[in-house]
Amino acid sequence: MRVEIWSDIACPWCYVGKARFEKALAAFPHRDHVEVVHRSFELDPGRAKGDIQPVIKMLTKKYGMSEAQARAGEENLGTQAAAEGLAYRTEGRDHGNTFDMHRLLHLAKEHGKQNELIQLLYQANFAEERSVFSEGDDRLVELAVTAGLDETTVRKVLTDPTAYADDVRTDEREAAELGATGVPFFVLDRKFGVSGAQPTDVFTRALTQAWGERPPLKLIEDSDAEACGPDGCAVPQH
Amino acid sequence: MRVEIWSDIACPWCYVGKARFEKALAAFPHRDHVEVVHRSFELDPGRAKGDIQPVIKMLTKKYGMSEAQARAGEENLGTQAAAEGLAYRTEGRDHGNTFDMHRLLHLAKEHGKQNELIQLLYQANFAEERSVFSEGDDRLVELAVTAGLDETTVRKVLTDPTAYADDVRTDEREAAELGATGVPFFVLDRKFGVSGAQPTDVFTRALTQAWGERPPLKLIEDSDAEACGPDGCAVPQH
Repeated sequence: MRVEIWSDIACPWCYVGKARFEKALAAFPHRDHVEVVHRSFELDPGRAKGDIQPVIKMLTKKYGMSEAQARAGEENLGTQAAAEGLAYRTEGRDHGNTFDMHRLLHLAKEHGKQNELIQLLYQANFAEERSVFSEGDDRLVELAVTAGLDETTVRKVLTDPTAYADDVRTDEREAAELGATGVPFFVLDRKFGVSGAQPTDVFTRALTQAWGERPPLKLIEDSDAEACGPDGCAVPQH
Repeated sequence: MRVEIWSDIACPWCYVGKARFEKALAAFPHRDHVEVVHRSFELDPGRAKGDIQPVIKMLTKKYGMSEAQARAGEENLGTQAAAEGLAYRTEGRDHGNTFDMHRLLHLAKEHGKQNELIQLLYQANFAEERSVFSEGDDRLVELAVTAGLDETTVRKVLTDPTAYADDVRTDEREAAELGATGVPFFVLDRKFGVSGAQPTDVFTRALTQAWGERPPLKLIEDSDAEACGPDGCAVPQH
């Protein structure tokens, strides 16, 4: 079974939702049969690469919140994150463009390091004091190398803005095709969807239902074909 | 969309079937949305690692064929392979245990090199004069490094018989659960199956049908949840 998770590094509910999902997965009896893939979704794709703002300022400017509302939202997120055992800085975080992070996550996927990298990016963005946006490529290189990627390869990807760009766009197009308007968005075997950082028991229900409803295979051609089995390799006798 | 292909390196119809499938995939309009994963299936799991036999001898002993039948089968395979543009040695090939190759294919999957490695293993087994079985680990190391894997890692996997062994067994159990009794066995989105080295047009039909019948997502919880979208991060107001 395969679970695809669309998310953005700049999305606090993705950080919290991932932890809730992982709690459900850890207790799921068939967890060894579940493959998790992370897909790209930018919340703020129009923001220029160097355009970095404090989160509270972004919330008041972009969404017209009062500063008190913005601060209350961050406090609530801090509480929800803590309930999942996650550190969350409710003050002083930055907001910026995440396109390069998504490109690196596609590189990491090819090397089997996607989960390592996304977790490090979330921690860097939501829990650490250093900004993940304001130090430029060096900070991303540091995190990617910690995740197990090769530094030269990572730098090459970062300096070539076309590298893995199509993969990010494809993910985003697929999210739209699947009906996702926000993230996190979880898709199980391309058949079941879970939208948002739902409680852990919703993820448990989704895993259980998707597992139980794995469809029986429909054979496209039921006739004998050239195949090998334990009894030898056969050519059908028509 | 995802296509999983169960196969064995010692399976000539897998070698031919892969080429037929790839011809269909290359012409499929949505090929950029198709991910291909190779799964393990041993035709001869009971054979000891060092037990190497000439293919013709194996066919006569294991399957009770006459030598003429065995040779005619190999000639037919050579003709079918040539029709797909594949080299095939109809004489002098060896047969042996493929468990280590499957373990390496799981390592290669983690590094995004699975297709490279399986293709090199097929070529080594079916087209090249050197035996892929009789030179021990060194030949496998050479092929894995050519596929882009790190030599030290490859040697570590080969000398530890438990490395990726569970992955091979899991693939084999899943094949049985899906009803596969021989290989190649192709599974599209865990919904459609194609058994054997079917003609290219059958694979085209399978890809087209599986693409057309991608199910609409069923949302497990339709209520609002904590999520972030282009308009900000929201907590549902219950």
